[in-house]
Amino acid sequence: MAALGDCSEHKHCASPGQPRGSAPVSSWEEGRELAGGDGRVCSQLCACCWNGARGPRLPAAPDFAVDRLSGLAGSQLRGGVRGGGGQWAGCPGNAESDPAQGLSRADWEAGAFRGARGRGRPPVRTAPGGGAAGPHASSRSSRRGGSVVPRLRSALAMKPTFSLRLRIFNLNCWAIPYLSKHRGDRMKRLGDFLNMESFDLALLEEVWSEQDFQYLRQKLLPTYPAAHYFSSGVIGSGLCVFSKHPIQEFTQHVYTLNGYPYMIHHGDWFCGKAVGLLVLHLSGLVLNVYVTHLHAEYNRQKDIYLTHRVAQAWELAQFIHHTSKKADVVLLCGDLNLHPKDLGCRLLKEWTGLHDAYLETQDFKGSEEGCTMLPENCYVNQRELEPFPFGIRIDYVLYKAVSGFYISCKTLRTTTGRDPHSGTPLSDHEALMATLCVRHIPPQHTPSPTHGLAERSRLVSILKEAWIELDLGVAQARWWTTFAGYVIGLGLLLLALLCALAAGGGVREVAILLWTPSVGLLLGAGAVYIFHMQEAKGLSGARAELQHVLGRAREAQDLGLESQPALLLGQQEGDGTEEQ
Amino acid sequence: MAALGDCSEHKHCASPGQPRGSAPVSSWEEGRELAGGDGRVCSQLCACCWNGARGPRLPAAPDFAVDRLSGLAGSQLRGGVRGGGGQWAGCPGNAESDPAQGLSRADWEAGAFRGARGRGRPPVRTAPGGGAAGPHASSRSSRRGGSVVPRLRSALAMKPTFSLRLRIFNLNCWAIPYLSKHRGDRMKRLGDFLNMESFDLALLEEVWSEQDFQYLRQKLLPTYPAAHYFSSGVIGSGLCVFSKHPIQEFTQHVYTLNGYPYMIHHGDWFCGKAVGLLVLHLSGLVLNVYVTHLHAEYNRQKDIYLTHRVAQAWELAQFIHHTSKKADVVLLCGDLNLHPKDLGCRLLKEWTGLHDAYLETQDFKGSEEGCTMLPENCYVNQRELEPFPFGIRIDYVLYKAVSGFYISCKTLRTTTGRDPHSGTPLSDHEALMATLCVRHIPPQHTPSPTHGLAERSRLVSILKEAWIELDLGVAQARWWTTFAGYVIGLGLLLLALLCALAAGGGVREVAILLWTPSVGLLLGAGAVYIFHMQEAKGLSGARAELQHVLGRAREAQDLGLESQPALLLGQQEGDGTEEQ
Repeated sequence: MAALGDCSEHKHCASPGQPRGSAPVSSWEEGRELAGGDGRVCSQLCACCWNGARGPRLPAAPDFAVDRLSGLAGSQLRGGVRGGGGQWAGCPGNAESDPAQGLSRADWEAGAFRGARGRGRPPVRTAPGGGAAGPHASSRSSRRGGSVVPRLRSALAMKPTFSLRLRIFNLNCWAIPYLSKHRGDRMKRLGDFLNMESFDLALLEEVWSEQDFQYLRQKLLPTYPAAHYFSSGVIGSGLCVFSKHPIQEFTQHVYTLNGYPYMIHHGDWFCGKAVGLLVLHLSGLVLNVYVTHLHAEYNRQKDIYLTHRVAQAWELAQFIHHTSKKADVVLLCGDLNLHPKDLGCRLLKEWTGLHDAYLETQDFKGSEEGCTMLPENCYVNQRELEPFPFGIRIDYVLYKAVSGFYISCKTLRTTTGRDPHSGTPLSDHEALMATLCVRHIPPQHTPSPTHGLAERSRLVSILKEAWIELDLGVAQARWWTTFAGYVIGLGLLLLALLCALAAGGGVREVAILLWTPSVGLLLGAGAVYIFHMQEAKGLSGARAELQHVLGRAREAQDLGLESQPALLLGQQEGDGTEEQ
Repeated sequence: MAALGDCSEHKHCASPGQPRGSAPVSSWEEGRELAGGDGRVCSQLCACCWNGARGPRLPAAPDFAVDRLSGLAGSQLRGGVRGGGGQWAGCPGNAESDPAQGLSRADWEAGAFRGARGRGRPPVRTAPGGGAAGPHASSRSSRRGGSVVPRLRSALAMKPTFSLRLRIFNLNCWAIPYLSKHRGDRMKRLGDFLNMESFDLALLEEVWSEQDFQYLRQKLLPTYPAAHYFSSGVIGSGLCVFSKHPIQEFTQHVYTLNGYPYMIHHGDWFCGKAVGLLVLHLSGLVLNVYVTHLHAEYNRQKDIYLTHRVAQAWELAQFIHHTSKKADVVLLCGDLNLHPKDLGCRLLKEWTGLHDAYLETQDFKGSEEGCTMLPENCYVNQRELEPFPFGIRIDYVLYKAVSGFYISCKTLRTTTGRDPHSGTPLSDHEALMATLCVRHIPPQHTPSPTHGLAERSRLVSILKEAWIELDLGVAQARWWTTFAGYVIGLGLLLLALLCALAAGGGVREVAILLWTPSVGLLLGAGAVYIFHMQEAKGLSGARAELQHVLGRAREAQDLGLESQPALLLGQQEGDGTEEQ
């Protein structure tokens, strides 16, 4: 396995000892020359080399040149607030704050991706704007407390040339103590990679051990001063976040339903699966970031957790809907354990209005079909992926902008199941790396009324489908409670019989021997009764919410307000999303 | 026990057969004459007679006359939108929509309250406004779907003469199937009372049986067309709501921590205590209504659930904080199981900025000190109330207005532990009946900076206190997990020993006999381990949130921003409340 440390072998990474932020790259040509010009192999796990061993390098695509030409810090403010002059060119990169990152991104572009799928669309060059802001301009301003930044909104974010760029990293880390292979090594390499790439936000799932989080926290402290681990369940939610920018607020919502405690071998119940919310103030914008991990799907053909996952997706959608009413940008990352066409995924997207980075991005590079669990990954259970030769896509970056803003996914990258050096990837899932750009909506933008009609019909149909699924779930949960009730009755009868036999002699020893299993049966049935009753109540709650929404949709239809589905179906003024 | 039906004995209630809304009362004098003039005793449970048996009637207070003079529907729009002319006099009553209600309210005023405490302040007569709106003006407009009403805000709610009146009812119903005395009768009388009073919103707790909810739903349907029961836990959250106005949206949040399942005799764990959220659109305003019920306090001297209740109060405060960012009016009702000076109550009020109706009202009538559990109540366990001769105040109506609005509690009434006729009250708790009035903030209103400093210091001190409480809770939960771990080890050893003894003969029978308790011990210890580990994680999550808030307060202090505590401590622009 390759040793990890400062990159000294490859010219495209910052020179050893050279401080971050000291080597701005001034042109795409220079970047290309540095990226692949020396022909040497990097021993680091920077994104540039992730798939370097897979094939010949390609020339860097011109759309990355646009990014690198600007040489600015990520998620920084544009609009002449802290500087003047300069040409605005889309959402600029943050090469100035971390040159290695800018270079490695270019090399990503230049590198070969085994099975990579590109959907390059040139970025839209919009109106020229103000000058470049200094690195961390936004973080400096947002550090001044909770409401200072929103107060600046009128002055900063309201400028017509406003632009904010965000680089996001998401990975399900598969870090189960004692069970996950090469956990320590993978955590170390993940830390090195995140430090080198210097994303705005790194959102991680399945960091089950708080020791692993503390290790990463220490390691990432210089690059990501803010971090948080979401504690819940018996083991912990596994969710954590590292941020380059200060976190203004955070909270969490633990899902009401999350499997059954008696399914110990699956273990999801013990994790206390949840959604974590972070509120960030960047350049005068309020950014609500959600990170989550839904219940796993263990058997797609006979999925006993389908209803729970649909209920979780609805709970997640409702949590986002109710907590993001004043946010300008909403971002959801995580392992949803849902395929793109699964009911839960469609429900979540339609109800919240979130857009899928993979489907919307101008420029995608990575695994075939954007899959995040690949057969090529040595940690993946190959048998589980047999029906899916390309793998499955269950990890997502979803986003929307509200209140007059527009968000687009400029680039999306995934890892592709292998590390060129050690041969072992960072996890059994693939990482997602998205570059998002927030701008003002062009004044001429008006949503199409026909789109509204189609949207409404799709939403209503999905809501109905979810209602039916939850209704079936309620019926099944009730069946289990009835069954458990009968077993409790039988168990009590058996226990009474055994007591009588033990008192009467004869088969006394056998009777006493059978006490333990009969008491166990009684307790087990009691537990099953309790858990399924809880399940029935939880599902009923979610079903009632869906029913209410459907009822309102019907009311709206009666009133002939078909053209505004999102508005009619619970989303408030300003909560509607724009066409991406 | 008196029979319940249409009030035919007492002139102050609408005549039998007379439809609701058909008998507007035009003056206070008339009301007074009707209220007590005939000297007969009403057999109904209208508010007027609630305490009628307690003493001689007093003349109706003039401030109620102001209400009744206007003769308008509750929570209706003022400002000339649907009518013209007429004098505006504070927030008008809804006598026109339900004359019986106007009368009974006046009679409440006129009736004698045993131990009643009055803090009458005359209502502020502000600028004259537009004419009277028709009954249900607001509900008619808000029925037109989710976003129609907010869109009207600029036209309606933005008028300087805008005024909205809300009549709220809250009661912990103590309706435990098979356990609560006279449950059926009390439910029936509650339904009659709610129908007669025609509140805008009736929020109920401890309606544990969904059958009871369905019974009330049927009974209240003509007066309260919208209703919802919040399902959760094994038994149900017990929370439900009846509304005269359409409910736009609802959702719920189940508390992460809620006692222990092995404390079966207390039973709170099985209830799945939660907070329910309703979003209503009234007269162009967005109204977020929360109803909740926190873990009970069984022993104040040795309260093993104190930490859970503090964690629940924090979770509730955070839920309100994050979900009400776009609401104009926030209302929280429920049984908090917290005394006014308890840490949880102070934490909730300070963090959310909610105001206590009892402390803020212009006019209070009811129990001494506003208590909601009284020794006079025949259902109350007298031993529990021994240290509190006047009773305890644990049920609340809390509110705030944001975005340039001002909310005040015009009147607050409580029942006082007895029904004059049957002698049995509606519940072991007392009902709260509040009349709230929403108006625009006067333009000259500016918060005092010195108040800001004091507020900040109080908030920080409460947050620290809560942090310490949760920290102690985490330590105790960890102690229990360690203890349970040792017991599991011992249980395993014991089981192995018993197996060896059983195999060796001699005391075989005894060994087999001991199997059951040792397996039980093992399972029990395992359950204790799991529940306390879950507790530790849950408390750690809440403690981390508090720590973050305190850290931000410190940062703010360093930056010398002491004068804006609410803004610095996580509350966003426009989320600050006004002086009530």
